[in-house]
Order: sequence, then C-alpha cells, then structure tokens
Amino acid sequence: MSAQATREALVGLSCVVEPGHRAVFAAVAELGPEEVWQALRQGRPCGAVSPELRAGAALRAEGCDPAASLRQLTTEGARLVCPGDEEWPTARLHWSAEPGLEAPPLALYLSGPARLDETVARSVALVGARAATRYGVQVARELALGLSDRGVTVISGGAYGIDAAAHQGALVSTGAPTVAVLACGVDVAYPRRHTQLLAAIARTGLVVSELPPGSSPTRGRFLVRNRLIAALTLGTVVVEAARRSGSLATLHRARLLNRHAMAVPGPITSALSAGCHEQLRHPDAPAVCVTRAEEVLDCVGEIGADAAVPLRGPDQVRDGLSATVRQVLDAVPVRGGIGEAGIARATGVSPLVVQQVLPPLVVAGLVARTSDGWRLTPLGAGRPAPGRKVPG
Amino acid sequence: MSAQATREALVGLSCVVEPGHRAVFAAVAELGPEEVWQALRQGRPCGAVSPELRAGAALRAEGCDPAASLRQLTTEGARLVCPGDEEWPTARLHWSAEPGLEAPPLALYLSGPARLDETVARSVALVGARAATRYGVQVARELALGLSDRGVTVISGGAYGIDAAAHQGALVSTGAPTVAVLACGVDVAYPRRHTQLLAAIARTGLVVSELPPGSSPTRGRFLVRNRLIAALTLGTVVVEAARRSGSLATLHRARLLNRHAMAVPGPITSALSAGCHEQLRHPDAPAVCVTRAEEVLDCVGEIGADAAVPLRGPDQVRDGLSATVRQVLDAVPVRGGIGEAGIARATGVSPLVVQQVLPPLVVAGLVARTSDGWRLTPLGAGRPAPGRKVPG
Repeated sequence: MSAQATREALVGLSCVVEPGHRAVFAAVAELGPEEVWQALRQGRPCGAVSPELRAGAALRAEGCDPAASLRQLTTEGARLVCPGDEEWPTARLHWSAEPGLEAPPLALYLSGPARLDETVARSVALVGARAATRYGVQVARELALGLSDRGVTVISGGAYGIDAAAHQGALVSTGAPTVAVLACGVDVAYPRRHTQLLAAIARTGLVVSELPPGSSPTRGRFLVRNRLIAALTLGTVVVEAARRSGSLATLHRARLLNRHAMAVPGPITSALSAGCHEQLRHPDAPAVCVTRAEEVLDCVGEIGADAAVPLRGPDQVRDGLSATVRQVLDAVPVRGGIGEAGIARATGVSPLVVQQVLPPLVVAGLVARTSDGWRLTPLGAGRPAPGRKVPG
Repeated sequence: MSAQATREALVGLSCVVEPGHRAVFAAVAELGPEEVWQALRQGRPCGAVSPELRAGAALRAEGCDPAASLRQLTTEGARLVCPGDEEWPTARLHWSAEPGLEAPPLALYLSGPARLDETVARSVALVGARAATRYGVQVARELALGLSDRGVTVISGGAYGIDAAAHQGALVSTGAPTVAVLACGVDVAYPRRHTQLLAAIARTGLVVSELPPGSSPTRGRFLVRNRLIAALTLGTVVVEAARRSGSLATLHRARLLNRHAMAVPGPITSALSAGCHEQLRHPDAPAVCVTRAEEVLDCVGEIGADAAVPLRGPDQVRDGLSATVRQVLDAVPVRGGIGEAGIARATGVSPLVVQQVLPPLVVAGLVARTSDGWRLTPLGAGRPAPGRKVPG
C-alpha cells in the first residue's frame, strides 16, 4: 500500500493533467508523484513538462483537494489503485515509450468487487463499432459468452454497439467478471442509457478509469483510454469496424504493446467489416482471423492448454470404404451410366469383384442403376444434389 | 508443332489412362509418348507403370483409333495442344513430383478461339461451393467482373454455384476471356443446365480438358482436374467453401504448386464461409484475405504495377483544423457542457483565443451551446449520434 501522501499526490495529478502525458509520466518516474504534484500546483518547473502544460495544471489545481477527494471516493464505494498496491497489474501497465503510444497510467480509479490484477490475468479486449450491425452485436455477444464461460475476462469500453454487446454476453456467464474501462469518471454514466449496464458490471466485475470521479468524456480521452484497454489484456479482438474507426486505434495500440491483434471477418459487402478485413490484410502484422472463442484462446492462450481443436466437416461416407471399393466408386460417372464390364476395364478390378461390390453400394445409397448402367447418386458424388442452393 | 505420330500417341494415352498418373508421366518423360502408347496398347511393360494399370489400359485401348479421333476433333471445332506447341504454357504446366500432387497433363483438348499460353499468362482461379449462397454468388460475380475488367483471365471449373457465377461475371466484361477447365470431354455439357454457359465460354474464351471428347465426369476426375485449375493460374481464390470442400483441394494444390492462395471472408455464421476462414487461419501458410479485385491483383501482380491503393474512410472534419483549434475541440465534452474559462483552463489556450475559435466551430457544426456551456455535436465527436444503428 502506498503512503497516504503518495496517493493524495496521484489523485491531485489525475485532476490537473490529462492521462497519458509522457513528460508528466517521466517526471513522476524520476522525481516521485509528490514532488511533481507540488511543482505543478505551484507552477514550478518540473522535469521536461512544458510551460503550457504547467500553466494549465496550475489553473486546474485551484479548486482541487486530493485528501477530500480520497475520502469522498471511499464513501461512494470506489477506490484508488496505485503502482505498489497488491492489486496493481505491474506487468500489464508498464511499457517503454514508443512513437504513437501514450504513457502508462499513473493510478486507476476502480468501482466493483473484483481484484484488478487477478481479473486481467486471463483477459481479452472485445471492441468495435458503436454503430454496429445486428451481425456484429450477435457475434460480440457469443464471443464474450464463450470467453467468459472459459474463465476469460472480457474487457471493453462500455460504449454502444459492440462494447455493450460484449459486456452483455459476458454478464450472461458466471465464468468470469467483465471490465469496462471508461473515458470519464467511474461514477459517470456515459452513455446515459448504459446506467443499468455499467451498474451491473460494477456489481460483479470492475468499472475502471484514469480520470477522477465526475470527469466528462472528451474525444481525446477516448483515444487515450483505448491504450488502457489494449494494455490490460492479452489481446484485442475487433469484432466490427469501419475503416479509420476508433476501435482500430485500440488494435494499433495492442500491436505497439506486443499484445495479440485479432479481427473477426464478416460479409465483404458490409462497411462495418471493412476495417476488420483491412486488419486481416495488414502489410506488416496481419491480425489473426478469429471466428470462435476457442480460436481467440488459441491465439492468446498458452500453446497446448487452450489449443483449439479444428472443426471438421461432417464425415464423408467414402471415408470408411476400402481402397478397391473406392476405386470402383471412382469409375462410376456422375451422369450417364457405365456397365460392369466398363468399370472393370476402367479400374483394372476384376469383373467378379465389381459385381460383388455394387449391390452393397446401392444399399448405402451411393450408386444407382439406370437404363445406361450404373451412375453415382448425389450422396455417392459426395456433394449436394446439383443445383440445390443453400438460402443466402 | 509436334509430329503427327506424337499427337496420335498422346490422344491414345488420354483414352486409356486417367490424367495425373505419375508413373505414366514419368514413363512418357523418359521413353516418349509413342513408345509408352505402343507398350500400353500391346500390354508390354513400360517404365514403372503397374501391371494393373497396364491391364486396364490394354482393355481400354481395344476400341481406340487416335488418328480418327484427331480428325473428328477438327471437324468438331476442337483441337489438341501438346508440349512443344507454341500455345503450350510450359512454365505453368511443368512441375516436379510432390506428395499429394498429381502429375502434370500430357496434353490438353481445347475448344474456343483464345490462345492458351496468352490467355493464362495473367489469370486467376475463382473457385468455391456448388451449393453457394446468394452472398457467395454475388461476390464471385463482382470479383470476376473486376478482374476481367483489369485484363485478368478468370479460370474456373464450369460447375454450379461459385464456378458459374465467376464465369458469368467474367463474360459480362470484355476485358479478358474466361476459361472453364472440365472433368469431362470439352464436348460434354456437364452439368447439362450449363450447356448455354459452356457454349458462351467457348465462343470467346476456352473450354479445356485433359480427357478425350465424350468422356464423362467421375469424382476422381474432378479432384485431378483441380490441380490443373491451380496450375494454369497465378493464384487461386476460394470465394465460398464449407469445411472439407473440394474447392479447398484446389487451394491446397495451389500451395503445393507455389501459387498464391487467397480466400474471401464472409459471415462467421455461414457454414459456407467456414472453409474460407479456416484457410485464413491456416497454421503454416495462411491464405491472403481478399475482398476486391484490386486486392487479388495486389497479391498475384507484380509489386508496384498492380498495388491496390488502400481504401480510406471518409475524411474526417478534424483533419483540416489547426493544432490550437483541435486542442479547444478536445476540451469540449460530449455530454454536459463547459464554459469558455473552463476550456482555457483545460487547454492552456488563452481565453481570448478560445472565444475567437468557438463561433466558427458552431458554423462548422462541430460544437453547440447548451445551458451548461459548450458541448460537442455528434459530428464534432467524429462519430454517429449515440444509439444510431446501421440496419444489420
């Protein structure tokens, strides 16, 4: 447990600087949170923090009382988790500077009974379009349910569309809690129609934010929040995304953080799957194509323990036949007909054997006698009857 | 042009042995077609050809008159193309023995005006399920049209479903001919309902087979034919396929032949796309995910000449804004409101500049004034209005 002064300094910092600032993170790493917090509130120089940022922080610090905020937090049933706390998932939340990647969080606000480090140990991010299609919603729900049933925490952003479907799917299962990482305070129900959903998540899982209670979401905060979703998990799955969608930013950050990048395919006629397909075609690091929870586990899991058993098509009737019988069957045409002598000539199998082999094949429904001799049935040809269409 | 005796021997061989036999191919390569043909018709030993195959061939040779067959071929408007002929695409039809891969063709029967070597120089195979869905048919037609418009020959197997859709799409375009490679004689309309389609293909493109005219399709012939579709092209695209589908056998052979293997994604809820997704997840050599003709060209084409320009999402309104204006916009919340002083405090931008920046943003539809101050519009937030769903 960090000292009270450290915790108050981290609360103060969360109130005056936006999450992810690399200069602030570097200053805290070098000087400690208390020194940086005191410097910023007093407008003093501090590490490589720019004068503009310092001026803004000093302005924001005016009405800020970290000690009172911390007390208030407890009465509201929320808590602050800091580096050094048992619950802090150090390995997940530590990374080195990388172009295009914001700094790690300084501390996290949590609401909910789950323990953060344990909850994220086996976790996957499911993200995607707010304006999801029915297909995307269905897929997100089923993937989330499947993952949760296998003890994997589903982490998402609490937004409309894919995020909501992922949380809902996970809530149906009792296998694992679900975690919503917000771009606003953990007490802010955004979007408002998700008040019930966020409350349900906080009852069994966790609602997480870097921002102090009461903070509103801004566009910049959504983007910075995305790195946290990517960082907390073993891998990120994009279920549906248009080109240039914000959920692709999460996948991009997953790659920068050396997490697994996955995408669900969909109809190529759907604009909401185009971003996913683009990721499957990524020139340097194509996303892994996933269609089932087992395949997600296969990608992020330890090899062997979670390896997905490839699905097989229905066993084909030919599989059980002897080589000679298969040879006879292969000589029988799909159309027209062939006599027993013809089969013998075509295969080199003796006419006597051909005569013995055919009647059981009729019983099995593989060949039929026609006016021209013998021909294959659709079953014998190993495919649907010609012209039969599966409805689109 | 090969000597008449050679041509007659190749016709004879096509009548008495099934295509793709490795021992027969090796014997022809070693001893020449005339010696192998004479040996087989007389039941003499020849190379490593098995006694069973020799017995079968001798039986089949009984009613065979290659010279008459060749004359008949010409009167029917078809022709035989052999190694050594100008039209023979040597580079495509020469490969070394490989487990699971049948031998190259000894000769090909052709019907149609196109010249084989030129036609296949820039070609792609589009294959897939006979029992295709409406989605698969639509995708195959559009891909084929797009490829053909770009001067790429579409090659397929003339079957129901994806094959037919590919040929039809290519026939709509005048950019390139289309080629059907059959598992029966070039004069056999199989399936019968494709009589018109095959005639249309033969009018401008080519109908190709290894089997002599009059031959019926058998299951074995379909499989062996698939290697020819893979071999003749730069790459194979599976548009729709169930698990264990025959069209996956074509993709498998494309890999063995070092051709490009591609697959079109589809809904993960469709069993007819499951085989495609499995190929995108192939453990050793995942198929390339393709969704447009340009992407197919990008895969098979020479880099640079055909490289697909990545599609971009619609330009976002923020792209044109200055850094200061974006900073102001980023401080404005999606919900609730913020005062001008609050924006100045949050951003470090001077209050005077904030006041100047906001009115143009209102005109641009990015921010709106509320009772609580300023907030982002859905356009300003860069995403659809919350809760808006695109119909699935």
